[in-house]
Amino acid sequence: MAELIRVADGADPRLADYRDLRDVSLRKHLEAEHGLFLAEGEKVVRRALEAGFPARSFLMAERWLEGLADVLDRSDAPCFVVEEKLAEEVTGFHVHRGALASLERRPLPSLDSVLAGARSVLVLEDIVDHTNVGAIFRSGAALGFDAVLLSPRCADPLYRRAVKVGMGAVFSVPWTRTSDWAGALPALSERGFTTVALTLAPDAVPVDRAVAGLDRVALVLGSEGHGLSPRWEQTADRRATIPMREGIDSLNVAAATAIACYETARR
Amino acid sequence: MAELIRVADGADPRLADYRDLRDVSLRKHLEAEHGLFLAEGEKVVRRALEAGFPARSFLMAERWLEGLADVLDRSDAPCFVVEEKLAEEVTGFHVHRGALASLERRPLPSLDSVLAGARSVLVLEDIVDHTNVGAIFRSGAALGFDAVLLSPRCADPLYRRAVKVGMGAVFSVPWTRTSDWAGALPALSERGFTTVALTLAPDAVPVDRAVAGLDRVALVLGSEGHGLSPRWEQTADRRATIPMREGIDSLNVAAATAIACYETARR
Repeated sequence: MAELIRVADGADPRLADYRDLRDVSLRKHLEAEHGLFLAEGEKVVRRALEAGFPARSFLMAERWLEGLADVLDRSDAPCFVVEEKLAEEVTGFHVHRGALASLERRPLPSLDSVLAGARSVLVLEDIVDHTNVGAIFRSGAALGFDAVLLSPRCADPLYRRAVKVGMGAVFSVPWTRTSDWAGALPALSERGFTTVALTLAPDAVPVDRAVAGLDRVALVLGSEGHGLSPRWEQTADRRATIPMREGIDSLNVAAATAIACYETARR
Repeated sequence: MAELIRVADGADPRLADYRDLRDVSLRKHLEAEHGLFLAEGEKVVRRALEAGFPARSFLMAERWLEGLADVLDRSDAPCFVVEEKLAEEVTGFHVHRGALASLERRPLPSLDSVLAGARSVLVLEDIVDHTNVGAIFRSGAALGFDAVLLSPRCADPLYRRAVKVGMGAVFSVPWTRTSDWAGALPALSERGFTTVALTLAPDAVPVDRAVAGLDRVALVLGSEGHGLSPRWEQTADRRATIPMREGIDSLNVAAATAIACYETARR
């Protein structure tokens, strides 16, 4: 059972995991170096624990203890109980949903273990916005995707904002990051997946036709600014597009992913 | 041609339109009382002007003047030129894309003028998150929707964050807000639209079947937390759903809208 420890001093070193949560570059260093990530909100904290991530500690105001009593009962990590004002002082923002947990990252699984048994996979190249990464995981989970593969420079799915926007889908959908950017799509083709790249190229076929009748599919999405790299576009087995009104900016990548996942789920 | 006015004092009352942009409740009051809204970034500022919104003023650092020279040439509003540090001090955040403009709101158009000639319409009930409102406008515009109708309590599409996420789609897609919450959907049915409510209700039909063969369609989306009100769900002509994996949280409303717009565009 988690030990409840009341803390009244914002400078207490035991709160280090929760420091300055709005400072993205600081947090990236801190979380990578200590192998931790943060979950925020009762539902997301519960899902992280249920998915088997070991808790380092919890931080919450008194009034959140009851809702998470069962989770705390099953954990040996300390729970720091603070005034809401102190939580705000430490984290740098108003903690709407009260509860925070610091959890241990796990080693990234191998590509083969992530793909084992998978039929529908998302592959993200250099999506740099944490909100988009979270939204993509959420849509993929809801529409029956089995795994996600990230390019070396794709944003971290365990960053707090991605976890929150994804409603914890990043805990339930197996994912890993490839270190072999150039060979990423061929590696999927070799394993029996048809890689289908979403693109605005004029010769791409509508996505419903691109995925029709396929067994194993890997949908390939490019970055927010420039879309897919030429390398990935060229090494994909097929190129697909979502028909849009002429003269309009493209869809946001999260919206395009939702539509492509929807069509792929119906193939 | 816009007069360039260099301002070195953050307390200068001429910068009042740009004050404390992160303070949502303050901004809501200020913008409503003065009938203004803000556009951020070169592309969005240009689109606002091209859509015919009169500028009250511009605020930018020296280095953004060149990119917007043509826009400033065609405007009589003053352009306040400030150091980037001062822009940050006044607005409360780092202005990434540099240029800001304060523009005049226009009176909301009537329902009939918004619907004139429209074949595909989005209807939003109480979507309270500005990011979602912006994302929905962007997807609607990209997928060929002609108009948007908002419930009385739906978030403001002209709020800075909605404008930015929507990439200015809120300037190009005609929209208005109804004051008649209870009669909103019947008013559309009377005008020849089939109202199709997106819902998780178990008896709803898949969205592609719900819209197949329809001429004028109004897609009806509910709020982030609780979905549609019973009143709107019951007064809609049809109820539709997006098939999802069992046991999973629903799609985010912006993702669900993208999929529903996509299917409706193909009907």
